Parts: sequence; structure tokens; C-alpha cells
Amino acid sequence: MTRDPATLLAEAVAGSRAALARLITYVESGGANQREVVASAYRAAPPYVVGLTGPPGAGKSTLTDQLIATALAHGALGAVRLEEVGVLCVDPSSPFTGGAILGDRVRMQDHATDERVYIRSLATRGHLGGLSLAVPDAVRVLGAVGFPVVFVETVGVGQMEVDIASAADTTIVVTNPGWGDAMQANKAGLLEVADIFVINKADRAGLAETRRDLEQMLDLGAVREPRPPIVATVASTGEGTEELWDAIVDHHDLLLGDGVLAHRQRQARADLDRVLAVAVRARVGALAGRPAYDEQVALLVAGATDPYRAAEALLSEP
Amino acid sequence: MTRDPATLLAEAVAGSRAALARLITYVESGGANQREVVASAYRAAPPYVVGLTGPPGAGKSTLTDQLIATALAHGALGAVRLEEVGVLCVDPSSPFTGGAILGDRVRMQDHATDERVYIRSLATRGHLGGLSLAVPDAVRVLGAVGFPVVFVETVGVGQMEVDIASAADTTIVVTNPGWGDAMQANKAGLLEVADIFVINKADRAGLAETRRDLEQMLDLGAVREPRPPIVATVASTGEGTEELWDAIVDHHDLLLGDGVLAHRQRQARADLDRVLAVAVRARVGALAGRPAYDEQVALLVAGATDPYRAAEALLSEP
Repeated sequence: MTRDPATLLAEAVAGSRAALARLITYVESGGANQREVVASAYRAAPPYVVGLTGPPGAGKSTLTDQLIATALAHGALGAVRLEEVGVLCVDPSSPFTGGAILGDRVRMQDHATDERVYIRSLATRGHLGGLSLAVPDAVRVLGAVGFPVVFVETVGVGQMEVDIASAADTTIVVTNPGWGDAMQANKAGLLEVADIFVINKADRAGLAETRRDLEQMLDLGAVREPRPPIVATVASTGEGTEELWDAIVDHHDLLLGDGVLAHRQRQARADLDRVLAVAVRARVGALAGRPAYDEQVALLVAGATDPYRAAEALLSEP
Repeated sequence: MTRDPATLLAEAVAGSRAALARLITYVESGGANQREVVASAYRAAPPYVVGLTGPPGAGKSTLTDQLIATALAHGALGAVRLEEVGVLCVDPSSPFTGGAILGDRVRMQDHATDERVYIRSLATRGHLGGLSLAVPDAVRVLGAVGFPVVFVETVGVGQMEVDIASAADTTIVVTNPGWGDAMQANKAGLLEVADIFVINKADRAGLAETRRDLEQMLDLGAVREPRPPIVATVASTGEGTEELWDAIVDHHDLLLGDGVLAHRQRQARADLDRVLAVAVRARVGALAGRPAYDEQVALLVAGATDPYRAAEALLSEP
């Protein structure tokens, strides 16, 4: 198989899953081909991205399974026909795979052999911006290949996941009954990213308390309009999946309410700000290697300057 | 009372708590006097900072109470005599106070009238870098006034708290029995900041399981050397406080093991990097207001560029 990005993209559009897999590997690896793949991928319209995030064991994989089936059964999301679904899985905290959770996918038995579904675990193998850029890039590759809707499943609810969630159009935070402490600990992050809250495994004890905790959290901290709905699901039986799909459709319709162009502009700003943030962090990192940086550290240790004056001195250097 | 920073600092060094309170208010407010206070404060040697972080209800205030008593009873930390202790309290997630948790301090009854203890809640009232810079600045004010050790108590375990923890020399993460889910959800953040883990309220059910969960987390993700110790405490009775103090002393001795100068250089680098990151973020924020930014967004929406090329174009602008 050829390794040329342009040829691979044409093959992937024609249906080659092997070509698609290689394109995403290019995006992950951050090598010379990454920029060429990205340049092509961003020429096409972006897919609609539904993000699912939550701690390990919340049942995200099973829930995604159910959502894939529901999405394909409905066959449309708003004005977009939905004949294929892409799924990206991310575990930034895994020390073993550097991000991939391949083992987890064996649970997605319903769709493992379904040609309408493409499932891929993402790792970072050198991408400058790590997963917070590799994920949106891979999403755009799927869009360019013809997937109108992409699900992104992310393990955890920390800063990395907040970054990844910024690439999703609709973000679903998955919790379980009895998770008051975990939610409390992540309050700020949860409120920042959640468009929809799901209480999965809702047949377990503690559903009412967890719903009450979430409602309280929204009462105290809600800055989002409209208020994120809370949907109870039992992913293992499919209970609540239709209600969740309805909530996704509602949020999609809301986002597109002021037109496709306005939505695309918001996406473009989010894409640009993400890359700018990474580029700027790289610049701060580069400063630390310069003699002028060591000079300022020596002045700080001697009590001859303060960090604000030191930073100004460094940033005003040519 | 005069409002001139230099005079206030002299008064605070002479023992005026009112002058000290005003200096810290200057640091919080980010106004014209902030820079002058900071310039003076960083001339003095930094205090040794012990950070305590964890979700609300973990018992941090009671634990800090016990640590204050223990620290003053020992009267020294390494080579430093310890006749006074400063305490800064931060709650970045509070929507009511914008950071302050004054109400919580009524629990610190043991030390409310103790002249050897200065307790202050911090809020952000305009500081450019928010609490992630206001906290280290306030710490240095306490150092310049003569406090050799400062405890910083932070509610939560998100990114903001990680930033604040980077200003501490020894960071203690406070958990409770039964917090497997909460810890799992914050794994990456916890491992990044914790020098010592405390399982407080250790007389409750679930101590063994929580200790096992923490050990597992350290087994899988430990990048720190040495491995952070896990100390069980019952802050309400004082059980385990001596052991915790010993762990703090051990970590202090470890940090100072390669000499005061090497330690001061590490602190100076951390101080400088924190301010650089904020300054550079402010520059990116300023980019978003410029016509060139809107032009790049329009090109992105049209599929005529990708976010990497757009960011390069913006950052290479004069």
C-alpha cells in the first residue's frame, strides 16, 4: 500500500479502511506526513462530534454501543443523513498504551463487524499538542473521508479531557449512582464541559441522590444556557438510550439554531485557539533553554528581581 | 493607617497584623500597589510552603489545625526555627466568594486567638494570573514579614489546584476512606502534585480499601521518586498527626538534600515559569481581538487553511 497522504485520502474516501487507519496513524505520529494529512482534512466540512467522557468503569463503551445503534436506526441527525458512524477512543491517563484502550473495544461486540461503523483507539506518538490536538485532527480526517457523525469517548474528567471536549459539539458526561464525591472533586471541570449529564447504571442504588447532587451542582454553578439535561440510562439493557439520543438531537438543533455558518465559525475559533495555546506553550518551553532564562533565575535566587520583571525581561528579548 | 507598601511592610515586619492584611489585599487586587509589594516581597528569602489539597469535607481545616499545633510544639523545621506559622486558605471553585472560605475558618478555634498564627482566606479580585499567581505572591509576602513556614490549604484537585500546588514545597493530598471513584477520576492530577497522601477520618469504614487503591495508583503511575508515603489520620482526635509531621520533615530534608541554593533555583524556575505561562496566555488572548484573527477564522470556515497554518500566520505577525 502506498504511503502518500493524497492517494491514501482518495482510497479512504473510496472505502478503504486500511487507508483510513494509516491516515489516522499519520495524525497521531506527528511526523512529516501529519501536516499534509491535516491540510487536506481541514479542506472538507467538519463532522458533527458527540463526546462522551467519564471515569473508567462508568459504562461509556456500552453506552456508545447503544448510541451507535440508535443513531444508525434513526438514519439522520438534523439535516445530515447518517449511514456511517466513526468512533474514536482515548485514554490519556493510561500509562501502558500512552492513550489507547484497545482492550476495551472487545466489549463493542455489536458493531465490531459492522461495516457502517469505524472504531479506532487513539494514542499520542509524537504529536506536538498531544491528544488535545491529535483528537480534533483525527476527527477531521474522519469527516474528510465521509463520516457525518463521530463519537469521541474519553476516559477521565481532568484538564486533558476538558481540552478534548472543546473539540466536541455535544459533550456527554457519564456518571453512575453513588458518585457524589467524584463529582464534587471535579465540579469545575464537569460544569465546564457538560452539555448533557448521563447517570448510567441507573438500576443501581443511589440514583435519586446522584440526580439531586447533580441538580444542586447545576443550581450553584450553572453558567450554561440552557441548563444541561440529566438522563438516566441502563446501557446494558438499552434503557434510556432513546431519551439520550433525543437530548443529543435537541442540543444539535440548538447549536445549529443560528445557522451552519455561525456554528462553523465557533468551531474554527475553538480549533485555532487550541493550536495557538499549544504553540505558545512550546514558546515558553523554548525560553527555558536560553542563557537569558538562567540569568533571570540567578537574579531571582539573589532577590534582585521578581518573577514579573523577570518574565517581562525574557518576553521583550528579540 | 498609611497605604504606602514600603511603610506597610516595615510595620508588618514589626508585628502589625493590620499592615500584613493590607499587603495581602494589595497582592489579591492586582492594582498599582501589587507590583511594588511583590518587588519588595521577593527580595526576602522564601518561606517553606506546605500545601494541603483535597475536595470539600475531607477535613483539611481540622488537619491544618493539628499541624499548626504540632509544628509550633516542635519549634523547628530542619534548620529553620519555627515560632510563627502562616496559613492561606483558597477555594477557587466557590461561586459565592470568588475564592474565600472565611466561614470555614471558624472551625480553626484552637488558633483563632493565637498570636503565633496568622490565618487568611485568599480571593482573586483582579490579579492578572488569578489565584495561581496571587497565592505564591501572598506566600512571599508572609515570608518577607518573617513567617518561616506557610501552610496553603486549597479546596479541590483540578488544574487550578495543580498550579497552586506548584508553589508548595511539600504538597499533601487529603483523601477519606471510600474515595476510590473520586481518586480514580483525578488520578493524573493527584499523581502530579502529591508528595504525601493522607487518608483522613481513618476511623471510618473503608480505610484498607482506600489505602490499597492509592497503592495501586502509585504502582501503575508512579513517576515520582521517592514514592509518596500514605499516612492515616483522624484529625478530630489528633491521631496520626505526628506521623504526618514526620513525613513533612522527611520530604523537607529530601528537598534540601542537595543544598539550599539548588532548592532556591528550583523555586525560582517554578515562579518564573508560572508568570511566563500567564503572560503568554494573555498575549494569545489579545490575538483574538485583532482583525488578522478574524481573517484566519474566515479562511478556516472556507476550508482554505488549517489551524496550524492559521496559528503560524498569526504568531509570525509583527
